[in-house]
Amino acid sequence: MSEKKQIRIGLIGTGLMGRIHTNGYKRLGDFFPEYAYRPVLQVACSRREEKSRAFAEQWGYASYETDWKKVIERDDVDAVDICTPNDTHAEIAIAAAKAGKMILCEKPLARTLEEAEEMVKVIEGAGVRNTVWYNYRRVPAVTLAKQLVDSGKLGKIFHYRANFLQDWTISPDLPQGGDALWRLDADAAGSGVTGDLLAHCIDTAMWLNGGIKDVSAMTETFIKERVHQSSGEKKKVGIDDACTFHCHFDNGSLGLFEATRYARGHKALYTFEINGEHASIRWDLHDLNRLEYFDHRDESIVRGWRSIHVTDGDQPYMDRWWIPGTSIGYEHSFIHQVADFFKSLEGDDPCAPTFKDAYETQKVCQAVLDSAASRSWKDTGVDW
Amino acid sequence: MSEKKQIRIGLIGTGLMGRIHTNGYKRLGDFFPEYAYRPVLQVACSRREEKSRAFAEQWGYASYETDWKKVIERDDVDAVDICTPNDTHAEIAIAAAKAGKMILCEKPLARTLEEAEEMVKVIEGAGVRNTVWYNYRRVPAVTLAKQLVDSGKLGKIFHYRANFLQDWTISPDLPQGGDALWRLDADAAGSGVTGDLLAHCIDTAMWLNGGIKDVSAMTETFIKERVHQSSGEKKKVGIDDACTFHCHFDNGSLGLFEATRYARGHKALYTFEINGEHASIRWDLHDLNRLEYFDHRDESIVRGWRSIHVTDGDQPYMDRWWIPGTSIGYEHSFIHQVADFFKSLEGDDPCAPTFKDAYETQKVCQAVLDSAASRSWKDTGVDW
Amino acid sequence: MSEKKQIRIGLIGTGLMGRIHTNGYKRLGDFFPEYAYRPVLQVACSRREEKSRAFAEQWGYASYETDWKKVIERDDVDAVDICTPNDTHAEIAIAAAKAGKMILCEKPLARTLEEAEEMVKVIEGAGVRNTVWYNYRRVPAVTLAKQLVDSGKLGKIFHYRANFLQDWTISPDLPQGGDALWRLDADAAGSGVTGDLLAHCIDTAMWLNGGIKDVSAMTETFIKERVHQSSGEKKKVGIDDACTFHCHFDNGSLGLFEATRYARGHKALYTFEINGEHASIRWDLHDLNRLEYFDHRDESIVRGWRSIHVTDGDQPYMDRWWIPGTSIGYEHSFIHQVADFFKSLEGDDPCAPTFKDAYETQKVCQAVLDSAASRSWKDTGVDW
Amino acid sequence: MSEKKQIRIGLIGTGLMGRIHTNGYKRLGDFFPEYAYRPVLQVACSRREEKSRAFAEQWGYASYETDWKKVIERDDVDAVDICTPNDTHAEIAIAAAKAGKMILCEKPLARTLEEAEEMVKVIEGAGVRNTVWYNYRRVPAVTLAKQLVDSGKLGKIFHYRANFLQDWTISPDLPQGGDALWRLDADAAGSGVTGDLLAHCIDTAMWLNGGIKDVSAMTETFIKERVHQSSGEKKKVGIDDACTFHCHFDNGSLGLFEATRYARGHKALYTFEINGEHASIRWDLHDLNRLEYFDHRDESIVRGWRSIHVTDGDQPYMDRWWIPGTSIGYEHSFIHQVADFFKSLEGDDPCAPTFKDAYETQKVCQAVLDSAASRSWKDTGVDW
Repeated sequence: MSEKKQIRIGLIGTGLMGRIHTNGYKRLGDFFPEYAYRPVLQVACSRREEKSRAFAEQWGYASYETDWKKVIERDDVDAVDICTPNDTHAEIAIAAAKAGKMILCEKPLARTLEEAEEMVKVIEGAGVRNTVWYNYRRVPAVTLAKQLVDSGKLGKIFHYRANFLQDWTISPDLPQGGDALWRLDADAAGSGVTGDLLAHCIDTAMWLNGGIKDVSAMTETFIKERVHQSSGEKKKVGIDDACTFHCHFDNGSLGLFEATRYARGHKALYTFEINGEHASIRWDLHDLNRLEYFDHRDESIVRGWRSIHVTDGDQPYMDRWWIPGTSIGYEHSFIHQVADFFKSLEGDDPCAPTFKDAYETQKVCQAVLDSAASRSWKDTGVDW
Repeated sequence: MSEKKQIRIGLIGTGLMGRIHTNGYKRLGDFFPEYAYRPVLQVACSRREEKSRAFAEQWGYASYETDWKKVIERDDVDAVDICTPNDTHAEIAIAAAKAGKMILCEKPLARTLEEAEEMVKVIEGAGVRNTVWYNYRRVPAVTLAKQLVDSGKLGKIFHYRANFLQDWTISPDLPQGGDALWRLDADAAGSGVTGDLLAHCIDTAMWLNGGIKDVSAMTETFIKERVHQSSGEKKKVGIDDACTFHCHFDNGSLGLFEATRYARGHKALYTFEINGEHASIRWDLHDLNRLEYFDHRDESIVRGWRSIHVTDGDQPYMDRWWIPGTSIGYEHSFIHQVADFFKSLEGDDPCAPTFKDAYETQKVCQAVLDSAASRSWKDTGVDW
Repeated sequence: MSEKKQIRIGLIGTGLMGRIHTNGYKRLGDFFPEYAYRPVLQVACSRREEKSRAFAEQWGYASYETDWKKVIERDDVDAVDICTPNDTHAEIAIAAAKAGKMILCEKPLARTLEEAEEMVKVIEGAGVRNTVWYNYRRVPAVTLAKQLVDSGKLGKIFHYRANFLQDWTISPDLPQGGDALWRLDADAAGSGVTGDLLAHCIDTAMWLNGGIKDVSAMTETFIKERVHQSSGEKKKVGIDDACTFHCHFDNGSLGLFEATRYARGHKALYTFEINGEHASIRWDLHDLNRLEYFDHRDESIVRGWRSIHVTDGDQPYMDRWWIPGTSIGYEHSFIHQVADFFKSLEGDDPCAPTFKDAYETQKVCQAVLDSAASRSWKDTGVDW
Repeated sequence: MSEKKQIRIGLIGTGLMGRIHTNGYKRLGDFFPEYAYRPVLQVACSRREEKSRAFAEQWGYASYETDWKKVIERDDVDAVDICTPNDTHAEIAIAAAKAGKMILCEKPLARTLEEAEEMVKVIEGAGVRNTVWYNYRRVPAVTLAKQLVDSGKLGKIFHYRANFLQDWTISPDLPQGGDALWRLDADAAGSGVTGDLLAHCIDTAMWLNGGIKDVSAMTETFIKERVHQSSGEKKKVGIDDACTFHCHFDNGSLGLFEATRYARGHKALYTFEINGEHASIRWDLHDLNRLEYFDHRDESIVRGWRSIHVTDGDQPYMDRWWIPGTSIGYEHSFIHQVADFFKSLEGDDPCAPTFKDAYETQKVCQAVLDSAASRSWKDTGVDW
């Protein structure tokens, strides 16, 4: 393995995403052994020393830091992986770009469109490799959906609909802010379900079905006040607890989107469906190895939705894993993104979604929030 | 059976709904034998004599007519059942009311809110018994959903969503107008999926979750021109092929609705889901004997969506049918509505949904169409 | 309708099957109007006068009897429908045949192979029309399965498996015998789940997959004693509560069958699956409008089990009902059997399954019980 | 991590199981960081040097061998992991035990009961740590099933049924023998689906429901001859392509089992269901994160099968992974078995299933094959 070219990773943020990205780096060599580039776990960074040290030790990082600026200053870091809350993405990414580092940034790209725009400007100016962790593109069933759409099997598209339903914030006793619950704090998160959940739906949607032209949205904050963990005092909740929007795609199809954290019974039910002239597709995250497919050209008496268990070697990424019928999980979408990013280093093409792609998604998020606030349709300005 | 009080039915319109209502009348005595009132199949009416006679003969009507006005003029008719295209509902219902007949009218009540308003005014003035065939309320699983909501099991409601997805008009070769395809002709139907499909969704929704306060909608006509059957010439299509809207309910919950005839793979997929603080419910027409139910108060390690096969004797209407595990079908919802209407005759309470209830649904439909046309939010003015 | 030829029905037994057969007779004219023959509800018979009279009145029979022999003696009865407990099938059927009546007999044909053999001998000697109510053949999805098998789509068959799982006798407090619970009384029923449930599975299996050659079975009686309703005293339970068997079909495929009334959570879960070289099929009674179909010849990346909602006009029987996507129920299988029986009267071919067919099924049941008793393989002697 | 006690692994066999076990060793430290023992990838062994070297390099083994005896002779190996075809299990395990190595052996334990008996004798005599890779016990949903059974929630058990359905050997062109297809060669495999698939079903069954007392089985070899890869000539196929058996458990419940490689449409459909007096459970490998649970004590009108998405932190093993709603895969069952084995080293209790446990499973397999051969019931002699 001595001939592999090493990419030294500086990981900033050691929460769920820090863990699952690291798992991705560690598996690359086992499952994509012929790839020319290899990650090296160089440094992990969390603000608290104890946590940072423990994380580095557990996962096998060579060192740790407590100040992200140090990570960027280090000469022995080639790529910065940003897994921190949304309010730090812009500052870190911009600094990393200026330092000439490759950047892998968690989604959503930023809290606001302005932040995102500035990030893209600097990153593109710096000419550094970059990608954003919209990981669901790399679930094999979703990648297969993309292949089917691109093959023309569906024909003209009429409808795209997606939901991302959760139920973990229903209790009014849940506080906002702090390490665990920054997603409920508008200052840290930028928005609620729009940036957290709909951003995923929008990225997948535009990847599969092209640009979103205009939107009409509705948001709601069901729990108006929650204790803030920083002060221990009740504070107005600034995020959107739920958001729905409908829209037009550039290709003339209609979109319908919903995200909420108040759908009792759904842990993380990300679903999408796309209806074309000839065929339709649907998928859901809870049973992520399956893709449902309907083809109207099947003989009429035996026509029905097919439940495809996407675990065969001729289906996306599955030649890397086990045998037909044996499932993979959520974490594998991140492993695949690591793999695709490292593969991209062998050539000149960027690894989508790039910052630029994520910026387009951010435009839709912004238009959604603006539409909800103004109770009017908004053009997105998306250039997909 | 001599002691049963007879209600002589005059059926106007002998298409799908004429058939399925008639089936309902004919089964009442078999399955609800103790009810005091009984339908008598007095007269069936279709415009063409041959069709009218054949229908009467097949189904056992004592006579037939070819002019609906004759039906209303007849002294031997107690109740008029309106199964004609939407453009005739108002005229027939108003005439029937003035003639003192009971009225059972197919949905949607009318083409426009103005028609509906006039109908309600006259019917209420005449004081005649009336009901509108929003039959899905009487699917046992849906009735059970109503019982669960009313019991308070769900707690505060956060979300209501419904879809009605079909795929039967995708071919551009399908003409509009005429006997079979009047639903594609705006003059006859008033609207497209809004009146045909969303009206059902709205009726169920307000029955389960209360009034809809305001809406923001989007409509689309995918096939812009179709041959009109009356002239044989291409004519602009005036109906909405697809419609989505989001809304606020009076109880503070959010609603999301969609109907289309361009969702390849779905024959008649009417689904709804309601998410409450403690529990959630969902249902779909393709598997209408099942109700899905999730209760967060279940012990956490065995918590999951329950698939309830609603075929037991302690579940709504099911003591009338067979044994646990044996399904009933679509037609049974109409039989149940016949039963409930006839039961209501034994007392003073009307059989919901009445014309007044259907008028409220019409308000939402109108607001939806207006919202789509103006690209703005509309208050519905619903008084539920 | 005066030209229709009338078949005057004498119904013996007014329980669940009496009701559901009667419903079948009453629907025939509405849904199969062009058929040349029509049932007339001539006489219903139950042992207790009150029940017999009430049944006749509710369902519209012209008269009633309390002694089945009277029904057979009547000249105004053309066909006898036997819906009584199993211990009376032989005597009634033989008497009816000798009186020259057509016979429609509930399944299982008899309690024992000897009874069944005698019945077939007499009925065939008398040359009367006959059929046995193995109704599941006439569920549209099951009939479609038959079409698919016959078309050769499946190729060589390897496996057939069927289950009939119920849970209604788990309580030890349930008595045996009497009107409602004669199925638990070996004297009345002949056997337990073998005759009641497996007989259905075997009929469908041989219809779809040909004769069963030999069997190896296991039975169990979980509750050894139950109060008998006739005496009020505890009595040994003589029926099989559960039965499993494997077998060879004449075509070389393997069969696996199970029935029980102790499978908690299953009301009436009759399922079968057939695996062929090229394609497979499965079906279950709880969702009877659906047929699952897998075709290995589908393109590999989109291959999966298809869930076919068997409600289209080009699927068996469905041109008689409503519109695509609208379900029918359990009772419709009986309506279809009535229709097919009446259709058969227009020609010379018998309406399968005949007594002779049911006798073959009885051979398998007998071999199953014998195998279980002797703990050895038994040849069935089936001639399919 | 310096304080961790190292267990140096010698892996023999580098096929699918070699890969997935290795993946398990490599994940232990990341996800079970506090465990006292740690695997070290010391040596991998495959017969062909090129393959052995490449495997060691890809997965990070410190060295490689081509003769398994060398692995056992090495002083720097603490534990031997046997992933070779069945015909070598006995010899390797016995040699490893005599050398005082811990042993982790793939299932089935051996080709025959005699081999298994000898293995247990030697291993127990040597007193070495041992476990057999019946990995499905460690799928979280299956482990949860075990907890539910042990909690008494199900009450008295009536039925246990399991299937393991595959379709990968239907083509008659598939050869037998050699690296890839030794499972079709009776000399190498010992048996067909009985040892390969039913052994899994039996292990899970006895773990959940206690000992199997006696069996009655049927086997079939559909393709009688296949080319043997060693000679290139057609040779009689000695394995069972399909096997079914029913049985009695020690607790009085009935069992029904089936395995086949000729069930078109099923890649690896391992399912089991257990029906108790109060509650039932079912599970299937294709959707391995879900457990279906029915509890009769639920309120009757909302009673139904619950689909439990076993991904919460209070469910078995899931506190080690991601967040509720995010699936894990097939490989995780092996990671969990590695974890449990390593955890067991901290105490005196063995890590089930041990060789002794697997020997009991082998007794059932042997009785099944004997029963099929003799067409008679066989006692298993199981001591569970």
